[in-house]
Amino acid sequence: MTVAMLAASANAAGRTMPEVLAASKPADWRPLDPANTLYMDIPAGRVVIELAPQFAPRHVENVRTLVHDGYFDGLAITRSQDNFVVQWSDPTGARPLGAAKKTLPGEFTRPAQGLSFTALPDPDTYAPQTGFVDGFPAARDAATGTAWAVHCYGVVGVGRDNAADSGGGTELYVVTGHAPRQLDRNITVLGRVVQGMELLSALPRGPAPMGMYEKPEQYTPIAHIRLAADLPVDQRLKIEVLRTDTATFTDLIESRRNRRDDWYKVPAGRIDVCNVPLPVRIAP
Amino acid sequence: MTVAMLAASANAAGRTMPEVLAASKPADWRPLDPANTLYMDIPAGRVVIELAPQFAPRHVENVRTLVHDGYFDGLAITRSQDNFVVQWSDPTGARPLGAAKKTLPGEFTRPAQGLSFTALPDPDTYAPQTGFVDGFPAARDAATGTAWAVHCYGVVGVGRDNAADSGGGTELYVVTGHAPRQLDRNITVLGRVVQGMELLSALPRGPAPMGMYEKPEQYTPIAHIRLAADLPVDQRLKIEVLRTDTATFTDLIESRRNRRDDWYKVPAGRIDVCNVPLPVRIAP
Repeated sequence: MTVAMLAASANAAGRTMPEVLAASKPADWRPLDPANTLYMDIPAGRVVIELAPQFAPRHVENVRTLVHDGYFDGLAITRSQDNFVVQWSDPTGARPLGAAKKTLPGEFTRPAQGLSFTALPDPDTYAPQTGFVDGFPAARDAATGTAWAVHCYGVVGVGRDNAADSGGGTELYVVTGHAPRQLDRNITVLGRVVQGMELLSALPRGPAPMGMYEKPEQYTPIAHIRLAADLPVDQRLKIEVLRTDTATFTDLIESRRNRRDDWYKVPAGRIDVCNVPLPVRIAP
Repeated sequence: MTVAMLAASANAAGRTMPEVLAASKPADWRPLDPANTLYMDIPAGRVVIELAPQFAPRHVENVRTLVHDGYFDGLAITRSQDNFVVQWSDPTGARPLGAAKKTLPGEFTRPAQGLSFTALPDPDTYAPQTGFVDGFPAARDAATGTAWAVHCYGVVGVGRDNAADSGGGTELYVVTGHAPRQLDRNITVLGRVVQGMELLSALPRGPAPMGMYEKPEQYTPIAHIRLAADLPVDQRLKIEVLRTDTATFTDLIESRRNRRDDWYKVPAGRIDVCNVPLPVRIAP
């Protein structure tokens, strides 16, 4: 007896998510681009992050430079705030930046034009329209012609100080709680965790204000953050994600808007952009 | 440099949450009712749960009976599913129920009439209207005249099998991820965690399907769940929560809809029911 036990059978009115995925075609999936894939190794295992140059080209390029130069290797997760974020940085602030920049202008929004946007049919509290762009939860506003990546669970962003141009990628955070959508359009989003999220979300919360750890002994050390493209091909993970511009993904959205297994009595008929699963698999 | 660093000063257009709370009056707060307060003791510390008889009177009464009889003492947290729930139960199923019932009819919704409902002004994806009832995130539908407690982070519900009347309170879950609002009106909500949430949310995720632990050694043991009213007065915690039917709470909502500290560049102008803080304090 569990919450949301999944029944094997579906009723005639629609399909369950497992049924939708079982019927997917190879072309519905895409491999992660090694140039946009980070491997972050911490004691508990590996966290895989997909970068989003569509939304933050300059920050992604800067983070690639930092990673290529080994900037994050030996740094630490210094913050875990319950129902909000984990964050990593250089606790000493002394590490040299090499060819990377310390700060960049914020990339908080971008023109909506030029993006392949799979729109959700349901209302959103925060944005005129939400949906997905290349696997990233996103929003857009026809009135301003802008689009932005939205803060869902697992999204990766760029820590900054009060000035909009005070971040650059040396400090990154990952959302570990209910979507903090008030951050949307206020900070640069540059990726999302596609594997290993549970290694970050289960870290002990920091006892100081804003979830900061108080002592270096409480930090989680980062052995390495590497770009898949910097590794030999045989050391890259064969991870694929479901394309969000496919009929299969549209079917998946519908299967989650109206759950068809035997457990649900009142299908929601709606879905929040941060409740849509983004399937990941190892390449068959 | 952090995400959402809080500046000490606010601009002239509004107040920050700390400013709103600093101006609160004693009557804006209410002590937890000992008859509706559970203390759950696990190795990491104490989790405090406020029960919601407004929404689930029969389940709350049944859980009080279970707790009074020591039903949960020595049981275990048997499930932790990332971005969803932790859940506890009797792994053996052998524990006697005493005077309590194993199952009850679901209390998924109730009449909206008779509730003090503080409505939010913003649209919600899942419900015609959201807001707060006696400190609990809630929704209502004028078309059906019903109201229900909604699944936000920290909300406590009653595990059930496929049949709507297959739960009774022997298995309880707590939301530890992004609000799974598809559960609304499908399952009985009977409370929320008001203290110690970080002790549940940081538990290692279970490796089996749906976050189940695979071996008893992975369980988190529950030393006791006790009702505050069953304890001597001097052993009860002096916890107060901000009343949600006050002008102070309405001011707090506004301070969070439009963040006024120096960090935010684009106030959201909106808020999701699950992003509104529900302040808790030790009685002064």
